[in-house]
This record gives sequence, C-alpha cells and structure tokens, in this order.
Amino acid sequence: MRLLIIGFGNLGRGLVESLAEKKSFLYRRFGLKPRVVGVVDDSGAATNNKGLDWRLLVKKAYQKAKVSAFPNYKRISAVEAIESVECEIVFELTPTNIQTGEPGLTHIKKAMKAGRHVITSNKGPLVVAFRELEHLAKKQGVEFRYSASVGGAIPVIELARKLLAGNEVLEIQGVLNGTTNYILSRMAEEGAPFDQVLREAQELGIAEKDPTLDIEGIDTAAKLVILSNAILGRDVKFKDVRRTGIARITPQAIKLAKETGNTIKLVGVATRQTVEVSPKLVPLGHPLAVGGTLNAVNFKLDLAREISITGFGAGPRETSSSLLGDLIDVCRTIA
Amino acid sequence: MRLLIIGFGNLGRGLVESLAEKKSFLYRRFGLKPRVVGVVDDSGAATNNKGLDWRLLVKKAYQKAKVSAFPNYKRISAVEAIESVECEIVFELTPTNIQTGEPGLTHIKKAMKAGRHVITSNKGPLVVAFRELEHLAKKQGVEFRYSASVGGAIPVIELARKLLAGNEVLEIQGVLNGTTNYILSRMAEEGAPFDQVLREAQELGIAEKDPTLDIEGIDTAAKLVILSNAILGRDVKFKDVRRTGIARITPQAIKLAKETGNTIKLVGVATRQTVEVSPKLVPLGHPLAVGGTLNAVNFKLDLAREISITGFGAGPRETSSSLLGDLIDVCRTIA
Repeated sequence: MRLLIIGFGNLGRGLVESLAEKKSFLYRRFGLKPRVVGVVDDSGAATNNKGLDWRLLVKKAYQKAKVSAFPNYKRISAVEAIESVECEIVFELTPTNIQTGEPGLTHIKKAMKAGRHVITSNKGPLVVAFRELEHLAKKQGVEFRYSASVGGAIPVIELARKLLAGNEVLEIQGVLNGTTNYILSRMAEEGAPFDQVLREAQELGIAEKDPTLDIEGIDTAAKLVILSNAILGRDVKFKDVRRTGIARITPQAIKLAKETGNTIKLVGVATRQTVEVSPKLVPLGHPLAVGGTLNAVNFKLDLAREISITGFGAGPRETSSSLLGDLIDVCRTIA
Repeated sequence: MRLLIIGFGNLGRGLVESLAEKKSFLYRRFGLKPRVVGVVDDSGAATNNKGLDWRLLVKKAYQKAKVSAFPNYKRISAVEAIESVECEIVFELTPTNIQTGEPGLTHIKKAMKAGRHVITSNKGPLVVAFRELEHLAKKQGVEFRYSASVGGAIPVIELARKLLAGNEVLEIQGVLNGTTNYILSRMAEEGAPFDQVLREAQELGIAEKDPTLDIEGIDTAAKLVILSNAILGRDVKFKDVRRTGIARITPQAIKLAKETGNTIKLVGVATRQTVEVSPKLVPLGHPLAVGGTLNAVNFKLDLAREISITGFGAGPRETSSSLLGDLIDVCRTIA
C-alpha cells in the first residue's frame, strides 16, 4: 500500500510517526504494509517509489523539518506530486481554510481524478464542497474518508454511519472545540473571568494568539456542517449555521449554572431542520458535561435513544488514531 | 435474508417490533429484506418459510404472548427448530446463565454447525465458552456477532475492534450495570442509604426482586469477561474476576466523595494483566461519571489516549439497536 502524504505539519508528522511506530502492529494485525512513497509541503516533495526510509521520515518529523530538508527533495508543487507519484492512497493534511477550502480542495479533486483513494483531516474542502467531493469519489470509484476532520481521535462519523446503522439519527449535539471547552471548564473551576482564562490558555498554547476561530464558534460550526452532511444526509453550508460564541459568558453565569447542578458548554446542535452553535446549560453528569480540552458528541436516535462519545479532539498523535483507522478501513474495503 | 429468532421474551419481542417498524428503512438504506421465518420459545415454534406475517408478529409481541399463542405453532424444541428451519441467520436471545451458558450455548453451537450466522445478546455462552465459539464460527465459515451482550445499545465491542483499529487497547473501564448505577446516582442525589434506594429501585422495576446479580457485581463481571476476551484478545473466565459489590457503600462515603468533586461508581477494569470489578471514586466531569441507569465504557489507547462511550445499557428497544446493527453488519460482510 503506497501512501502519498500532502502536508508535513503537525498532523503529517504525527501520521508518519504513528505509521513508523505501528509498522509491525499493522502487519501482524491486518496484513498491511504501508509505504510512504512521498511527503509534500509548500517547500517541495520528497519521493521514493519503493518507500521513503522510515528512519529518515521519523527523524525529519521529530526535527519538525520542512520537506526541503530531505535529501534529494524536488521543488514541485503538491498538485504535481499528486499527478506524478504512483500511489494508492493520498493523505490530504494541509491547513483548513473554510472560506475557499484551498489548497486541500484542489488536492483532493486532483487525487480522486487520478484514481487515488483519499483520506483527509482537512475541514475546509468538506465545509465548502461536501456533496461535490462525495459525488466525485463515487464517480471515480475511489474511497473517501474524513474521520479526522471532526473530533480528532473520536470516530464520530463512522460510529453513526456504521455502528449505529440500524438507527435514524434524530439529532447531533457536540462539544467540538477543545479550546473553548478548556476555557469554560477553567472558568467554572476558578470562578475567573473569560479574559483572564483566555490569556492563560494562550500562554499554555491551548488557545491561538488570534482565538477568533475557536471562541466565536467558527471551528465548531465548520465541524457541525460536516456532521450534518455526513450523518444527517443534509447539504448544509457554513452560512446556514446560527452561531453565538463564548466571549460574553460571565463568571456569574457559570456560578449560577453550577448552583443549579449545571455547567455551560459551547454546543453545536444539528437536526434535519436546524444547525446552531451556542453556549448551553448542560447538567452535571450529562455525557456532554466533559471537562478540560475533551470533545464529546451526543446522538439522539430512534432505537438507541442516546449514545455519546468522548475523547481528545485534537493533537497530532490523537488525530493519527483516526487517520490510521481510516487507512485500515480503506484497505479492508478495497481488499 | 431469513431470520430465526430463538427466545421471545423482552429482547425477542423488541427485535420483532424494531424489524417491523424499520422494514422500509432497512430496504431503502441497505437493500435488506429481512423475513422472520421462525420464532421459538420454550412453549414451541411458529414457523413459515416465506416469513411470518409482520402484523401477526407485532401483535403477539405487543401482547407479550408465548409462541404457543401463534396459530399453527409446533411443539418442537429450539434445537429442533434450529436444525429444521431453513434460514441464514439465527438470533439467540434466551436468558443468560453464566454458570452453564445454557440453553444458549447449545443453540449457538447447533446453529453454527448447521451453517447459520449467529447474532446473540446472551452473555452466558460468551462467558462460558468465548474462544470455543469464536473458533467454531471460523471453522464453520459463519459470522458471529454479540454487540448486544454488553452495554445494550452501546456498540462497545465494534467501536474498539473496528473504529479504533489502529490502536492497541491498553485498558477498559466500564460502568456496565444500569441498576447499580441508578442506585449509586440516587444515593448521591438524595443522601439516602443503600437499602432504601434499593427498595425504591425494586418498586420502579429497575432492580430485580433478587438483586444479587447486579449489586454484587456479577453482571458487571460477566460483561467484563466478554470485553476482555473480545477486545484484549484474552481468554479470561468468570472466576478470574476479582469482585466487590456496592452493598457496603454508605451515604457518608458518597457525601465525602461529593465534597471532593467525585462520585462513586461500580467500575469494571480490564487490562492485559487484571480483571476487577469494584466501587471506585470517579471525578465529576469524567466520562464515566454518568448518572441514572446509563452505562459508560472508557478505553485507554496508545494513540487516541482515551475514548469513552455512553448510552443505555438495557431495554428491549435500545438493545434492538445493537441487534439490527449486527444484522446490517453481517449482511454487509457476507454480501
């Protein structure tokens, strides 16, 4: 199984490290022998049709090197690599842009048109062109997986689509952003105001310098769009999401919530009629009332009533769990 | 797809009702046309090789009728039905006996030897003869699924084995018994003593008249044996489980837990070395700190770190979610 990895940032490097670490596990358990025939970033492409040396890959990943630090790298673009490198599976792991979906959108389309199966963590292309990409994959007869795009390590989409297949999903509720959950959890624990906790989170690297995407619920909304389309069979766009962030949550509101046995979480809710992101009261003991940077998703279902799943929604190693899960699933499906 | 249903108690009736309700959904979504060619209990068997009439099935299920109330039922045993009724899939849904595994164990073996795929909710055969049944299924070339045996509606086993396939499961922790969870949750809410809350639970039908299996952790231990064998690849027997029940938990202990931000849950823990059921302190906000009759399972994993899943661990309709999930999966696998 020949893999081409587009994007050698946190997630690309995390995938390389996990693949190297789990080589013998993947062979022993599933008979899989993945070979990374190329890694690509905006500095160029390092390729080897027999598979790049694992020690080299792990060393460069550990050093957080650009691809231009690989011996014999070529100054070619991702699109050129996708069109010229022989492989079965393309991992599209470039950063998310939910306005244009680029450059991931072009990468995914080119890969599918070249007959490659595609696994992505990139929300952008899915938010911008979900149905188009699903149709293209079907037309080209290739597999398309995107477990890592929502919930990091949590297999949210596959849980609903495969394991709960006997159910109609009536509603999806999700705490889908670790940064805002961290901030709200700390506010509840310390009674501290939003601005102070945000600064602490920024110092710890949990919140970005520009925290807009997280605290205004944009990241949550993007993930909710993907879940609505993938699980509820809808064709929702980003602009369809009603959205309220957490910047106006006061310590008083959180204290009041606590006194009544509740906590406040930034919750995305999708049904067949609505898609909405807003701060909500969640009872303590409810599966969505998870602390720290955890993510959680709660499904309302016609048979099972409610199923919730919780885990780490970010982190390169955690996300590689979903990427490897998709890889194993694609290999099973095409075997 | 011809189904033979052994056991027409709560779960058998719940399955029949869900199948009837979701007939068109199953056809539309998966192209499946299940027909119930036989239902069997200890009063006899009602069979029809073209499929029993759905209205008749639903009516008898609704009336909580014995199979002897069906027109033209035959006084034959389950084993005779398994050996004589032409079908592809046998549902084994008789009551659990974790000492002998019977009568489910014999039913499952006979069905496999007759070349039938088997789906079961019955813990007994899995606790008594897990490896033997897995081997027999493999030898006979039939599919064997038992999602409904642990966690009711929660697809615990398939989550670990399929969706988290890239991970090594390092530890399984589970709140696997709704009755004890209800009792402990009520004790925490009311500050009431164990005996009083148990009586209330018995009046509500949440606890059995003889609550031994639940409150002494026997049911949890049986489920933990299944999870250890199915997910950790072990060959654990019931006697290997160290077990402490909840009867000695005092309101004082629960109050003290609460004051330190914790709650007390009956937790089953399995690793490659240990299998143990005992009351444990769980921090509020932890995914295992679920209230009411909910069940929850937490996996410790090498890549994803922790994934938890929560849902209703019992109830005929909830459990039919797992039975239908298994049915869809078996049909996909053999297609």
